Amino acid sequence: MGLSPRQFEQLRQRLARPRPRPEPVSAPLPASPPSRHGVILGIDPSLRGTGLGVIRHARDRNEMLEYAVIHCPPGWERSRCLAHIAGTVRAMIQRHHPGVCVIESLFQARNYQTALILGEARGASLAVAAEAGLEVYELAPRRVKQAIVGYGAAQKPAVAQMVRRLLGLAEAPPPDAADALALALAFAQEQGRAVLSPLKRI
Amino acid sequence: MGLSPRQFEQLRQRLARPRPRPEPVSAPLPASPPSRHGVILGIDPSLRGTGLGVIRHARDRNEMLEYAVIHCPPGWERSRCLAHIAGTVRAMIQRHHPGVCVIESLFQARNYQTALILGEARGASLAVAAEAGLEVYELAPRRVKQAIVGYGAAQKPAVAQMVRRLLGLAEAPPPDAADALALALAFAQEQGRAVLSPLKRI
Repeated sequence: MGLSPRQFEQLRQRLARPRPRPEPVSAPLPASPPSRHGVILGIDPSLRGTGLGVIRHARDRNEMLEYAVIHCPPGWERSRCLAHIAGTVRAMIQRHHPGVCVIESLFQARNYQTALILGEARGASLAVAAEAGLEVYELAPRRVKQAIVGYGAAQKPAVAQMVRRLLGLAEAPPPDAADALALALAFAQEQGRAVLSPLKRI
Repeated sequence: MGLSPRQFEQLRQRLARPRPRPEPVSAPLPASPPSRHGVILGIDPSLRGTGLGVIRHARDRNEMLEYAVIHCPPGWERSRCLAHIAGTVRAMIQRHHPGVCVIESLFQARNYQTALILGEARGASLAVAAEAGLEVYELAPRRVKQAIVGYGAAQKPAVAQMVRRLLGLAEAPPPDAADALALALAFAQEQGRAVLSPLKRI
């Protein structure tokens, strides 16, 4: 369909007008974590058995780099456990240079004393991660299970089996390490969709 | 009242018998901290305003070496605060080489979330102290106030004023730093009497 000379002139003038910039429809979305988070450290802290897991995330697959459970015998003083946790997390960071650290978000503990001691184990780990320059994110346990098993109330053995399968491991890692790897895997999955459901940086 | 010869002989025989060693009434007391703890670091942790205080303890006097409050603005992420706390505690330890670190024992917090966040601040500090080789002790708040003010339910300003006086400072330190110095001073006082009322190493 051709344009008449008048129609053409109208169109030309309309296109020549300065165009108003569209108003943003909402506040800018929080920046999603940049895709450079290829190496991800998951931490499942506790005073006597902190789980650690490091994965390398690529577009089509996730590779397990290392996992560990930091055992602190019951006879050890609390401060000795905290030093051991801090040192082990630091060494793992130095080996793999993760850009991000993922931890479970706060949940209800049995009692105040438990919360405080769990908090100490978290603080020892997170301070090391943050000092090493890692960005620290929290994921709710339900969101992790939903991402890994597809079911928010999944039990620990189911999580460990899915972690084994997703990472192509010969056998399931010990439960605390499996939980840490699950955190890292869930973060890897979720960071693509973070615009819809932002990840919480702490 | 005199003794008859028979009474005297009975008494003599009783005293001559091998005396049974008294059974210990309880488990042996834990070893009290050695007196080499001349330089003492007190820590009063919290996420936004951790108090630190270092004193040198001698037989006849206590000298304030340094105090500080680690401010973390409300806008900072939690992990950034923890890194800042860890770094500041580490730097203070490197400047003064304390042999012991004293912290308040666990007490009731308002709620679970508060306990967990306080625990994280404690964990960040204690891990650094323990990694640097310090022995870590806990003192109950009442015991600190009793030692410093002579009254277990003393208010913060009274503690700060006594800390000022005991250390011969020109003015009272800010409350969080005063609490940290009070912990160090109380430990200095208590370590001499630790056999009667053992100090709790954690």
